[in-house]
Amino acid sequence: MFFASDNAGPAHPKVMEALLAANEGHARPYGNDDLSEQAARAIRALFEAPEASVHLVATGTAANALCLAALTPPWGTAFCADLAHVEEDECNAPEFFSGGAKLSPVDTTDARITPEALEAALRRRPRGDVHVPQPAALTLTQATERGTLYTLGQIEALAATARAHGLPVHMDGARFANACAALGCTPAEMTWKAGIDAVSFGGTKNGLLGVEAVVFFDPAREWEIALRRKRAAHLFSKHRYLAAQMLAYLHEDLWLHTARAANAKAARLADGLRACPEIALTHRPEVNMIFARLTPALHAHLQEAGAVYSAIEAADGTVTARFVTDWSLPDTEIDRFLALLQQG
Amino acid sequence: MFFASDNAGPAHPKVMEALLAANEGHARPYGNDDLSEQAARAIRALFEAPEASVHLVATGTAANALCLAALTPPWGTAFCADLAHVEEDECNAPEFFSGGAKLSPVDTTDARITPEALEAALRRRPRGDVHVPQPAALTLTQATERGTLYTLGQIEALAATARAHGLPVHMDGARFANACAALGCTPAEMTWKAGIDAVSFGGTKNGLLGVEAVVFFDPAREWEIALRRKRAAHLFSKHRYLAAQMLAYLHEDLWLHTARAANAKAARLADGLRACPEIALTHRPEVNMIFARLTPALHAHLQEAGAVYSAIEAADGTVTARFVTDWSLPDTEIDRFLALLQQG
Amino acid sequence: MFFASDNAGPAHPKVMEALLAANEGHARPYGNDDLSEQAARAIRALFEAPEASVHLVATGTAANALCLAALTPPWGTAFCADLAHVEEDECNAPEFFSGGAKLSPVDTTDARITPEALEAALRRRPRGDVHVPQPAALTLTQATERGTLYTLGQIEALAATARAHGLPVHMDGARFANACAALGCTPAEMTWKAGIDAVSFGGTKNGLLGVEAVVFFDPAREWEIALRRKRAAHLFSKHRYLAAQMLAYLHEDLWLHTARAANAKAARLADGLRACPEIALTHRPEVNMIFARLTPALHAHLQEAGAVYSAIEAADGTVTARFVTDWSLPDTEIDRFLALLQQG
Amino acid sequence: MFFASDNAGPAHPKVMEALLAANEGHARPYGNDDLSEQAARAIRALFEAPEASVHLVATGTAANALCLAALTPPWGTAFCADLAHVEEDECNAPEFFSGGAKLSPVDTTDARITPEALEAALRRRPRGDVHVPQPAALTLTQATERGTLYTLGQIEALAATARAHGLPVHMDGARFANACAALGCTPAEMTWKAGIDAVSFGGTKNGLLGVEAVVFFDPAREWEIALRRKRAAHLFSKHRYLAAQMLAYLHEDLWLHTARAANAKAARLADGLRACPEIALTHRPEVNMIFARLTPALHAHLQEAGAVYSAIEAADGTVTARFVTDWSLPDTEIDRFLALLQQG
Repeated sequence: MFFASDNAGPAHPKVMEALLAANEGHARPYGNDDLSEQAARAIRALFEAPEASVHLVATGTAANALCLAALTPPWGTAFCADLAHVEEDECNAPEFFSGGAKLSPVDTTDARITPEALEAALRRRPRGDVHVPQPAALTLTQATERGTLYTLGQIEALAATARAHGLPVHMDGARFANACAALGCTPAEMTWKAGIDAVSFGGTKNGLLGVEAVVFFDPAREWEIALRRKRAAHLFSKHRYLAAQMLAYLHEDLWLHTARAANAKAARLADGLRACPEIALTHRPEVNMIFARLTPALHAHLQEAGAVYSAIEAADGTVTARFVTDWSLPDTEIDRFLALLQQG
Repeated sequence: MFFASDNAGPAHPKVMEALLAANEGHARPYGNDDLSEQAARAIRALFEAPEASVHLVATGTAANALCLAALTPPWGTAFCADLAHVEEDECNAPEFFSGGAKLSPVDTTDARITPEALEAALRRRPRGDVHVPQPAALTLTQATERGTLYTLGQIEALAATARAHGLPVHMDGARFANACAALGCTPAEMTWKAGIDAVSFGGTKNGLLGVEAVVFFDPAREWEIALRRKRAAHLFSKHRYLAAQMLAYLHEDLWLHTARAANAKAARLADGLRACPEIALTHRPEVNMIFARLTPALHAHLQEAGAVYSAIEAADGTVTARFVTDWSLPDTEIDRFLALLQQG
Repeated sequence: MFFASDNAGPAHPKVMEALLAANEGHARPYGNDDLSEQAARAIRALFEAPEASVHLVATGTAANALCLAALTPPWGTAFCADLAHVEEDECNAPEFFSGGAKLSPVDTTDARITPEALEAALRRRPRGDVHVPQPAALTLTQATERGTLYTLGQIEALAATARAHGLPVHMDGARFANACAALGCTPAEMTWKAGIDAVSFGGTKNGLLGVEAVVFFDPAREWEIALRRKRAAHLFSKHRYLAAQMLAYLHEDLWLHTARAANAKAARLADGLRACPEIALTHRPEVNMIFARLTPALHAHLQEAGAVYSAIEAADGTVTARFVTDWSLPDTEIDRFLALLQQG
Repeated sequence: MFFASDNAGPAHPKVMEALLAANEGHARPYGNDDLSEQAARAIRALFEAPEASVHLVATGTAANALCLAALTPPWGTAFCADLAHVEEDECNAPEFFSGGAKLSPVDTTDARITPEALEAALRRRPRGDVHVPQPAALTLTQATERGTLYTLGQIEALAATARAHGLPVHMDGARFANACAALGCTPAEMTWKAGIDAVSFGGTKNGLLGVEAVVFFDPAREWEIALRRKRAAHLFSKHRYLAAQMLAYLHEDLWLHTARAANAKAARLADGLRACPEIALTHRPEVNMIFARLTPALHAHLQEAGAVYSAIEAADGTVTARFVTDWSLPDTEIDRFLALLQQG
């Protein structure tokens, strides 16, 4: 009954197989091997972006911080959701990688930034005033930090607003696959076709040991990102092991299968939670993440029974819980958990 | 006939086995899993330092940059060999991680810093003069960038000189295992017993996919290093895959076996090189790395035959080549290469 | 009719006299001259803090950024008012000087942080969670960005809350003198006696050409601040010209006289504004700064007549204006302006 | 008998007059005043560069660090003389302002970089290798740190070499005026006509209280430098006091008169030193700075008599002294000092 995070599950067996297969003989280091070249090509193909600049890294924080640093000069500011991982959970990595740029949190509705909220935030940072952190970029989290989604139309509208103010747009895609699967769209539709300039294309939460891709649709970024990655110590010598994971991930749409599985498991769990009178979902779950309010008694009961999930207790005792599912979670575990609710 | 680098070979089969074995069920992320705890304990045991602060990262540059940043304030300077990897090959990662500290190269003899050279370098950076980058740390590379070694006595003497000037000492141990194997000493003897404060304990060049340990013998560094690692985006969510590699590496002294194998292969190669009149070794090879001067004709012959190694051609046509061996290099490949020399 | 800012007026004649007097012969550079020593002593005496670390700089942004950088590690966060100059108007200087630390804006009431609001902000940054920017400091602006004041009791309460969470407290005293004059308290009472650890002691807005003092009550900060100042290029070679200004500022309480004058002029202006039906003060003016809402018609009338003040026009046409007075503003100018209101 | 530095003398009386004259009424802050506009125009006229980007700052370190940061990305390196102020005496300010770029010292002859030495240094930093700090800029000090000069031809040759490697060139002109006066050339000839892209145009050592200009001949740098200056806390609110100094400095060639005076005084001093058998000049003095070796006995005698100059004592007792003259140094003081030599 482990619902704490989708970064706690195992890697997919096909990924491990690919890793073993890659472990043969000598290969040129630092990404100059064949697998690395193939992985870059595969990502370009996936995004229908044959010119895109692609760099693999091992953590989502690295992908986000590299993207934001490339888009935001040290005297600039990137606008992000008030709940964004980059603002709340990366221990100032974006500030570090960018040389001291500022994140400007934007108010959200159901964890989504709206064009109006972005406009309001921009009014506080007038471009051209030398005292003011200069507007430099917008970053969106898809899926959001509360398990909701931006529709393609919402992404387009936000990107258009950003563009009107001269801001390129980054997508934090730690749960990119879950979002794509839920929207039933292609990676290209969810990104450059909707106005996105750079993507943190996540793999770690969806079946890999630890690989994310930094994707810039403007090929002119290639060398700069390569240098930024090296300088941040994120260029691996034995790069083939990152590449092998990514190739397995993209082969025969494994990424989509694992994402669909994770989403389906969350839907099964959400159905059960909705049926429980002591539980109220706080957001409509659209991917593999559910936020819900529990009674203190039920929370205590679940904890005692060994269920694992994140929870914040408010001053009045109410508990807000986060349940996350990954592709590897057995349905039997979900059902065991749901059975607990009925006893609760 | 691949002698280009020891970061180009495969991971050891036992390491791959450990990875597969670790790939079971859910584990707490971000280093809070059991394997990570075991790995830290194993490293502390290896170093006979039960209190040491231990953090795993995936690249040697990350390990070095974190260590130097922890020892050197932004207004300080770390003294390093004039050939040091941190100065020449890390694309300013130490400057980045430290917030702009300076590296002060020290003249070397056979790639080694001497106490006299360190004293001379210190005279150019008088402590207490507000205009001058303040002396903050010394970093040694063991084995050195030219395949030579510091003896235990040499390390002690350098550390004593550093200490007399208030400088803590870091060891860049990208080839730590090769050095330990060659000196026949323990990790403790080569580090804290000789006056070393912090170590980049390398694994990647010696049989792992990509794991290095940041070791500080002062346990008070624990939390700071944890924060620095996270901020630099080097905290892995699925940390168990780093830990599993390290555990396999330390289990039944695998690290020592692979290092000894690599050193022995280099010795076999060096013996053959010495016998060739068109080749002159430029340094006495003490671990798994050989530097030699070749005639242009021989170099052309070897290249044509498919031998892979690093080479720098001087204006006068002379070639300085670097040959590196790792544990996985078949002796037959060495012998095939040596046979080429006789035809050359 | 210039009410745009208190950094637009001339320096006080006594300050210019001191500058001329200091311009004699050779003096040791970089703060090693006699005047610099005297100035440091004079500030220590003013603050009744004979051990305090004192460093002069030429801009308020430098003073603030040095203070915050000394208190906040790169992985930390400083809590500040949501309107704070450090957050809104210093073009990321605090992030730059601190190596990428984050500012966490706290909700304000009448531009003041309350202990409750600080507690709420702290709950979003739980100390000890490696993903979270670590709580490191609190910075208060006295007088606030809206011309209001913290009472001594309010400062004490905030400092006590901060202290309970392990946070040292900085005071941005760009208008320190105006606040002291208005509260009728001593500099010591408004700072260390109330729990303040570091002060940006402003002079530029109150009669100097450009001098602020960085004051740390903990003398152990001395050398670190000296190095930080030099590294940031804020150590002047001809330091005597900063020192001479500061000495004139403190001599016979010039600082208090100019501040009282500025406050009195604002009071005179505020009285006139209150009498005008087309104007509504938005905050109770407590020092030399007044915020008021004007009708669009009145605003147009005033602009036409040549009055200079900052103004923000809202979407509905309403204008929020800021009027600032300095010691040099002639009362006749105020009266001329007030006369305009009656015609408006 | 003060020969310690040219930053220890008083400001020129005409500069003080200008300061007093500027101290009238209110002026728009932050460089938006009339004097600031005039000063920028005057500098553009001086350099015959009507489009140049010009920003005043108060310290030479600020000017240098801003220039180098604008030319060198964080993953880049600026080549400088091995004795350069930026490398030795700015406490890592260039590294700080650039976000962690590296300075690569180049061997010098008589304190001058040669094209050959630059080429040799460039060979150690091959462009396009991701591990290597990328060649980004060259910085020259004119006059050099040892009181010698680059001829116009030497500057042209170095700039051509730099250009051939894609490097823009910065001139650290802390003693720009002394160099111009000695060479008898125009500022334009010594800079952009010879291939220089950016200049730290010094004033502080030559009669000002503290003003230097950051000059970029490419006008596209304007906004970036403005933001960098603000972020580094070097934008003064009462900017008119910097502008007034600079205007006085350029008015009727005051800068040239003071520089010529300083050079002449050094020549008078050098003549006397050359006549003394216990003194050997180490470099041919070409501006206002003299380096000489003294016997220990003579040094002791001079110190006792109250002469003030910088001196480094070698292990063998020999003393290397630096004598610097500024425009304000009375000839009688020089003669008094020279008289001492004869008694020595």
